[in-house]
Amino acid sequence: MAGSTFGTLYRITTWGESHGPALGAVVDGCPAGLALREEDIQVYLDRRKPGGHLVSTPRKEEDRVRILSGVFEGRTTGTPISLMVENTSQHSSDYTDLAETYRPGHADYTYDAKYGFRDYRGGGRSSGRETVGRVAGGAIAALVLARAGISVEAYTASIGPVRITPGAYDRANVLASPVAMPDPEATEQALAFIDAARADCDSVGGTMECRIRGLKAGIGDPVFDKLDALLSRAVMSIGAVKAVEIGDGTAVSAARGSDNNDPFRMENGVLTKTSNHAGGILGGISDGSEILIRASVKPTPSIFRPQNTVTRDGQNRELTIRGRHDPVIVPRAVVVLETMCASVILDAMLCGMGSRLDRFLDFYR
Amino acid sequence: MAGSTFGTLYRITTWGESHGPALGAVVDGCPAGLALREEDIQVYLDRRKPGGHLVSTPRKEEDRVRILSGVFEGRTTGTPISLMVENTSQHSSDYTDLAETYRPGHADYTYDAKYGFRDYRGGGRSSGRETVGRVAGGAIAALVLARAGISVEAYTASIGPVRITPGAYDRANVLASPVAMPDPEATEQALAFIDAARADCDSVGGTMECRIRGLKAGIGDPVFDKLDALLSRAVMSIGAVKAVEIGDGTAVSAARGSDNNDPFRMENGVLTKTSNHAGGILGGISDGSEILIRASVKPTPSIFRPQNTVTRDGQNRELTIRGRHDPVIVPRAVVVLETMCASVILDAMLCGMGSRLDRFLDFYR
Amino acid sequence: MAGSTFGTLYRITTWGESHGPALGAVVDGCPAGLALREEDIQVYLDRRKPGGHLVSTPRKEEDRVRILSGVFEGRTTGTPISLMVENTSQHSSDYTDLAETYRPGHADYTYDAKYGFRDYRGGGRSSGRETVGRVAGGAIAALVLARAGISVEAYTASIGPVRITPGAYDRANVLASPVAMPDPEATEQALAFIDAARADCDSVGGTMECRIRGLKAGIGDPVFDKLDALLSRAVMSIGAVKAVEIGDGTAVSAARGSDNNDPFRMENGVLTKTSNHAGGILGGISDGSEILIRASVKPTPSIFRPQNTVTRDGQNRELTIRGRHDPVIVPRAVVVLETMCASVILDAMLCGMGSRLDRFLDFYR
Amino acid sequence: MAGSTFGTLYRITTWGESHGPALGAVVDGCPAGLALREEDIQVYLDRRKPGGHLVSTPRKEEDRVRILSGVFEGRTTGTPISLMVENTSQHSSDYTDLAETYRPGHADYTYDAKYGFRDYRGGGRSSGRETVGRVAGGAIAALVLARAGISVEAYTASIGPVRITPGAYDRANVLASPVAMPDPEATEQALAFIDAARADCDSVGGTMECRIRGLKAGIGDPVFDKLDALLSRAVMSIGAVKAVEIGDGTAVSAARGSDNNDPFRMENGVLTKTSNHAGGILGGISDGSEILIRASVKPTPSIFRPQNTVTRDGQNRELTIRGRHDPVIVPRAVVVLETMCASVILDAMLCGMGSRLDRFLDFYR
Repeated sequence: MAGSTFGTLYRITTWGESHGPALGAVVDGCPAGLALREEDIQVYLDRRKPGGHLVSTPRKEEDRVRILSGVFEGRTTGTPISLMVENTSQHSSDYTDLAETYRPGHADYTYDAKYGFRDYRGGGRSSGRETVGRVAGGAIAALVLARAGISVEAYTASIGPVRITPGAYDRANVLASPVAMPDPEATEQALAFIDAARADCDSVGGTMECRIRGLKAGIGDPVFDKLDALLSRAVMSIGAVKAVEIGDGTAVSAARGSDNNDPFRMENGVLTKTSNHAGGILGGISDGSEILIRASVKPTPSIFRPQNTVTRDGQNRELTIRGRHDPVIVPRAVVVLETMCASVILDAMLCGMGSRLDRFLDFYR
Repeated sequence: MAGSTFGTLYRITTWGESHGPALGAVVDGCPAGLALREEDIQVYLDRRKPGGHLVSTPRKEEDRVRILSGVFEGRTTGTPISLMVENTSQHSSDYTDLAETYRPGHADYTYDAKYGFRDYRGGGRSSGRETVGRVAGGAIAALVLARAGISVEAYTASIGPVRITPGAYDRANVLASPVAMPDPEATEQALAFIDAARADCDSVGGTMECRIRGLKAGIGDPVFDKLDALLSRAVMSIGAVKAVEIGDGTAVSAARGSDNNDPFRMENGVLTKTSNHAGGILGGISDGSEILIRASVKPTPSIFRPQNTVTRDGQNRELTIRGRHDPVIVPRAVVVLETMCASVILDAMLCGMGSRLDRFLDFYR
Repeated sequence: MAGSTFGTLYRITTWGESHGPALGAVVDGCPAGLALREEDIQVYLDRRKPGGHLVSTPRKEEDRVRILSGVFEGRTTGTPISLMVENTSQHSSDYTDLAETYRPGHADYTYDAKYGFRDYRGGGRSSGRETVGRVAGGAIAALVLARAGISVEAYTASIGPVRITPGAYDRANVLASPVAMPDPEATEQALAFIDAARADCDSVGGTMECRIRGLKAGIGDPVFDKLDALLSRAVMSIGAVKAVEIGDGTAVSAARGSDNNDPFRMENGVLTKTSNHAGGILGGISDGSEILIRASVKPTPSIFRPQNTVTRDGQNRELTIRGRHDPVIVPRAVVVLETMCASVILDAMLCGMGSRLDRFLDFYR
Repeated sequence: MAGSTFGTLYRITTWGESHGPALGAVVDGCPAGLALREEDIQVYLDRRKPGGHLVSTPRKEEDRVRILSGVFEGRTTGTPISLMVENTSQHSSDYTDLAETYRPGHADYTYDAKYGFRDYRGGGRSSGRETVGRVAGGAIAALVLARAGISVEAYTASIGPVRITPGAYDRANVLASPVAMPDPEATEQALAFIDAARADCDSVGGTMECRIRGLKAGIGDPVFDKLDALLSRAVMSIGAVKAVEIGDGTAVSAARGSDNNDPFRMENGVLTKTSNHAGGILGGISDGSEILIRASVKPTPSIFRPQNTVTRDGQNRELTIRGRHDPVIVPRAVVVLETMCASVILDAMLCGMGSRLDRFLDFYR
């Protein structure tokens, strides 16, 4: 029940189904006084749109966001910001044969199990379109963080076996790449790999990473609201994500303490770490170095091969999915990762303002 | 702020530091009528104690739990259950030289950054002893789930390069193994590997897994309180965990949709999946098959080699940690994983009772 | 921060300002399978509209609600229900002279103090129009409760010195009365009283009551989420309410225990109370008898007399408010009281389903 | 379920029953660096003890508080503060005959209805002893507020027909009065009134008030977490409270807008109100003037006259309560009111630190 609200002080509530009249989000708790236009959010939404590249679905999604409340004379007022995107190009008829059949790898069966029935058009609430609200709401968090000198940037790190060159990060490349990779060579290889999978009526997975820079040490609330814990929840809540890693992630299981520990050093009077295996978080609190999160994304479950499945009334059948589906989810999920992380960071910063009595007293002096 | 409470309807609040007078938890929302004795919880707490094996620290930890409220005539009353474990064998003097120095890989620096100062004795709140409260509180959840026919069982899956034999699961072996492995051969190899690391004044990492069986389809609350999202948050909040995976986890990034999708089939009139790459969760909702969670645990940061670090007042120095420390965290963390997962599952079940109008109306008829 | 979400499992998030493009609510956690049409909600919204009676403002408010998500084929799906009402007849020009002046009795000054600036048009978020979202969201709760045989009915109990006749309750009269009184004689007197105040360029206060019937014993969660505590919070959050009473309310301070205690008696095999001073709640839990809540509402702060006040830049000035304003708030607030109470009751029922282990085990058997 | 936690960032979780081994609270989110000794809290707990005066029960309650965590070297560390008070003088035998009988005006029946059975000793969780945890936890909030120049002071305003002299407030008198009245004459009259009721085997009600001074304008989070809404919930959650009023409270229903509105005026360059009918809160946000809350408390339900009631198994019977019971609840509840209000105010202040972007950016610069 009531799983569509997220955050403690910066709080996003999303709503909407794939083929309903609209989708949206209500952002509550945004600090008052932020300059905010619809275009500022639209930039983020456009990144989750299919771009006309072969990689992503040819559906035309306009996804124009409207701000319905919470902004006055160009600035946020501190009251809830209601964001709405109308669904303009959904074709329900593509899905009517799915009303009675459970697509493997999708949530059709589990929604029926939970709620007794479901909006079967395009996956309803379990569709990737649900992320429209997340991205719109998280974009505002990213804008606030930018004002505080904090960048939150995500990109595709691998698609199938194609990995980006380590260290080759370039934000402009990410934004220009149809697969959101920071690395033109990897982009080319990934496109070729995806094409081959598509030709084979199959789909592929990948990984994406998010880097957060400029966040000072001291953010995160042990022991259950540790920063890595809240980031993990946020990232794992993105459809198709099956693993979340912080810093060295799974590699720590094979490491030695003597390697994995990040030594501290003073550099020009500033405490730094000479390595960052921890990914910027120690004991659930930011340590002032770059935060690195990695998510593993499963292959698109909608594939154009016959699959074994069952019907609502318990009959075995073979299903061949039709319609328009990306053969890889990662590139469009990158902006979702980015905005979800931004929301978590902003919320943790807001929640942490009273952690020291002296600062609390100063603030209210 | 206020990060020590966890859960919506089954809610655990933990408290206590490594070297304070006591640690504990308050469990709020446990259904009334559960038979509950201190011994039932003690069984779980004993599993996180160092067992006298070479693997774990030689500190003597009694960790006797007392139930201070919420139980009357041997049954839970529905009111908060207060659990307390007194700290009986902590030697603060071992730590006094750490008051001014930040241990690499520990939370000393970040606690200072957040709170301005810290209880430096044994890591204070960031110590592994904090898990006493989690285990005690989660043990009660596990007992409730057992009554509902749901088992939640965790074990060590690897220590350094030593992996358990696939499929060799045996609960009795896990409980008997000093490293919590289900597999005697792997246990032997792991012990030898740990001994070698100890002799080298170093520490090692590993992985642990938790399997949840008997949970029906339909549990979990999209889109932010998806079951995998809440499990991830709970597991990542355990100290030293750096990665969380569900089902195939990171392996999905290299998979094809045609392999990764789990086909549905009717078997003896029951809907089943013929594989379980998804790890028992689809769209954030349990699908009725076994739930599999994997966590990667970093090597113990306390190692007995000299390490570079800095002091509170910004001086570079070399630190050699003394005292008693496990060279591997995993074996004692297994029961923490198990009890955290149990808490999440029970909470999700309680939250989901009203998801269908017909069942809600039946319940209140 | 983030004060616009309400409830634990049945959760309403409202948004919108008096003169923005629209207002609305997102209802999360409504049980799946409820038959729901826009007309079902409209009936409630129409009750908060000014009815053309002299009593309330002559502004034309269409307030047509649209359901944007969460309903499929006429039934709720368990996913968030987004409700929107467009603002069609707001005249911002009426308010421009208020941009720099704080209206006495309004929230102009406190919004500026909190947020640094405010949407001054019609009070912005602090306008009575904010209740559009509450009523729309709470109407759905009332519909669920009706299905469970629980009625939630509010009415005006007094306006200034005019009180309804004790015991003369008649729902049809309430719905027909321009002042929402159950009693035609009182309605006439109240209208005359209001007219006199209006002619005097003044405004008046009153009281409203809500009665909840059909709720079984056992709902409410001590000690902080007691049913009366949550009702009080919900009711006091309605603009202009300054007092909340349960049962005998303030009168208990002058009572004796021998009178105030409600004796229990078995009647036809059913446990009953022979009086109901407690107003249906004992120890924060429903006792099966009628729940009675009373709210005292202050006079409309917008009056057409000159008032002393100050400007944003700290100048004393005299203000005469213009525009269209009800001389009494109570009649239109009655439906707000009713729907807020319905939301609290439904949420408490959902939260309480797991309070007994035996029922929990039965449910998941 | 899970109703024993309270607050968003300053969060109190209470536990314990009247006749269990102990009661207590966990305070999470207290800013780090507050000087805190057990004696600081004890001062508050002592105020809820029966003082040896005829007014209150002759039971000897030691109620010595212990701090079990969250304080190091005399200062709070920012981690959870666990507070415990052992039950030392409870006589369960006094209550055994109540196991099967529902006391009128008590929660015996409703606890059975909710949980299926109950700890019947002394009312169990529904006992007034539950407030031990509230007072201990709220005392810390009061200490933080005092550091910020904010006073939170409660007192008895009336007992039966005996009212304090308006304006005669004197904190020292309150602390010295056996009935917590600020006014020695009223104290004498109240004691006589109580004695007469006691001689008549009866009990009496009263009112208490809390005044909060020094809080700046701008605290409180519309629309559901308005400051008056959260205060109302907190106050109504105190056992035996049946009405909550802010400022003029119920009197507003008979007022005119021209009287009820508080004019603003600049005085010595400071914005002030020339009256305070609103009780310091406008639109749910503090307006910088004194906040006034009033609570009406019912007569003690335990009276020494025969009362009609029923048994668990549905038999009518006559009950005469024995044991030791205060004939009036108000004097000991005053400190509960005070500490609950302090907790709400501190929490709202912590939650509001990020309400303006400019201040947020300054804070994290």
